[in-house]
Amino acid sequence: MTDPFDVFVGQCRHRCQMALPQFIGKSTSEYLPGNMPPEQLFAAAQYSLTNGGKYIRATLVYAAAAISTESESNVEDNTLDHIACAVEMIHTYSLVHDDLPAMDDDDLRRGKPSCHKAFDEATAILVGDALQCRAFELLAEAPGLCAEKKVAMVKILSAAAGPRGMVGGQAVDIAAIDSDIDLQQLQSMHTLKTGALIRASLALGGCAAGVSAQQLAALDKYGCDIGLAFQVVDDILDVEGNTEMLGKTQGKDGDANKPTYVKLMGLEGAKEESLRLQASALASLEIFDESADHLREMARLIVNRDH
Amino acid sequence: MTDPFDVFVGQCRHRCQMALPQFIGKSTSEYLPGNMPPEQLFAAAQYSLTNGGKYIRATLVYAAAAISTESESNVEDNTLDHIACAVEMIHTYSLVHDDLPAMDDDDLRRGKPSCHKAFDEATAILVGDALQCRAFELLAEAPGLCAEKKVAMVKILSAAAGPRGMVGGQAVDIAAIDSDIDLQQLQSMHTLKTGALIRASLALGGCAAGVSAQQLAALDKYGCDIGLAFQVVDDILDVEGNTEMLGKTQGKDGDANKPTYVKLMGLEGAKEESLRLQASALASLEIFDESADHLREMARLIVNRDH
Repeated sequence: MTDPFDVFVGQCRHRCQMALPQFIGKSTSEYLPGNMPPEQLFAAAQYSLTNGGKYIRATLVYAAAAISTESESNVEDNTLDHIACAVEMIHTYSLVHDDLPAMDDDDLRRGKPSCHKAFDEATAILVGDALQCRAFELLAEAPGLCAEKKVAMVKILSAAAGPRGMVGGQAVDIAAIDSDIDLQQLQSMHTLKTGALIRASLALGGCAAGVSAQQLAALDKYGCDIGLAFQVVDDILDVEGNTEMLGKTQGKDGDANKPTYVKLMGLEGAKEESLRLQASALASLEIFDESADHLREMARLIVNRDH
Repeated sequence: MTDPFDVFVGQCRHRCQMALPQFIGKSTSEYLPGNMPPEQLFAAAQYSLTNGGKYIRATLVYAAAAISTESESNVEDNTLDHIACAVEMIHTYSLVHDDLPAMDDDDLRRGKPSCHKAFDEATAILVGDALQCRAFELLAEAPGLCAEKKVAMVKILSAAAGPRGMVGGQAVDIAAIDSDIDLQQLQSMHTLKTGALIRASLALGGCAAGVSAQQLAALDKYGCDIGLAFQVVDDILDVEGNTEMLGKTQGKDGDANKPTYVKLMGLEGAKEESLRLQASALASLEIFDESADHLREMARLIVNRDH
């Protein structure tokens, strides 16, 4: 018997794997007279978008949009593909830039050479720039949504991805290397760096489906908890996982004198914290019926994953 | 007697200089509990946005919005500030990333150390990322515009700034170093790299003001010509200008074995081409009354500038 959640996750991943290459497109001379298309830019973008990511943020978009709402309006899969791929493009751009030598300087990403190793640094910088831009374009192009919803979505995504969200978190992350920060500060950093985009994924899916303000608040509380849980588990896997399973260099964060949950709470303390956050996330979903079951399973998946 | 165009350009610059620092904001601990704001990110963004740029693209937004339209609807200055600053943020982010060692590796920008020299490379990467994101947020937040116009604007800006626009042009530009490209290919590259955002500036200003499709087409033709003229003059100044006036390293493009108009057409040929493009740009404006005078002067300014 096949588990319905496994089927759902597989479908979400499949939809992204089909849609992302189409959405970034291929370089063709047709849009650039003179036969000089930037082949490498598109090849590197395709490479970064499709090299075996888990598509967790995209899956959260689809799962949040599956929640029963009073409006009972069905949102088309094609609409959700645009939103899910927009979020994945933001996420992928952040990884491509984060791996650069001037940033985290990581040669491996998802088990393969990171973008600047497979191509070059200039291409990796431009790929990140192109993906961020295209993400906002995808929201504006999403079919079947009124202009008001699209504007709301651009606001949600830009707030989450910008200097008061993900990029701000990355700046703090870099500043925090070799510095002593406490647990509250570590949490604040991850709330921006990882949490903001996870919460945005849920808000975007919910917004597309027309959830109520109360439902949106519950989704956001759930997103806060799984966002932090995701990072706590990342820190645990950085100690306990192995490079092959992780697809990135194991032990790297510890080596770089980066503050981690494991350093501040101990390995057992971090494991307890991940379970506490999982329970808190599940409690936020109590107002929903079984239409939120995929979100419940996502909370379990994020904490129980081994890579 | 003061020239009305000088007054207009001064006002546009002043509006940007006032609005840009507010729009990017300062880092304050209030949005990041735990007292760990990314001070440097905001300081570097402020630095890059306000270090003496010419604000040509912003001025084109204001000038295009000044055109008389049938709708006769007045668009508020505050609305235009959002749009003009969005365009300047995209432009500034592209310069910050373009100056990076892995890209053009330029230590000077507008007469001052470029962002990665004044701060560091990681900060410069993140500043560019933050500015691009904030640009789309500004369009979504622009007051006094209906959601349909905002969505149209996000589409215009994302198409112009993305892989089929500015970023694509930068990728071609890097690929073209040390290679033999012909005049048509050089033109194609600049049409993307510089032209796309200049045309978008005009389209955004026109869209805000409610211009007709015919007026929009004329603005676009004008934008094509001044965009190319801008680059031809850049290449001329790279040979004839001096580092102090240019605020960037004179002769750098020639040194880097980059294809330039001067190399392909000769200095006199390039000067003739700039005048031809100026005349063509002015011809496109013939359908407009004196409300397009600022645009006419802009075409003269772009070709006659000395830095």
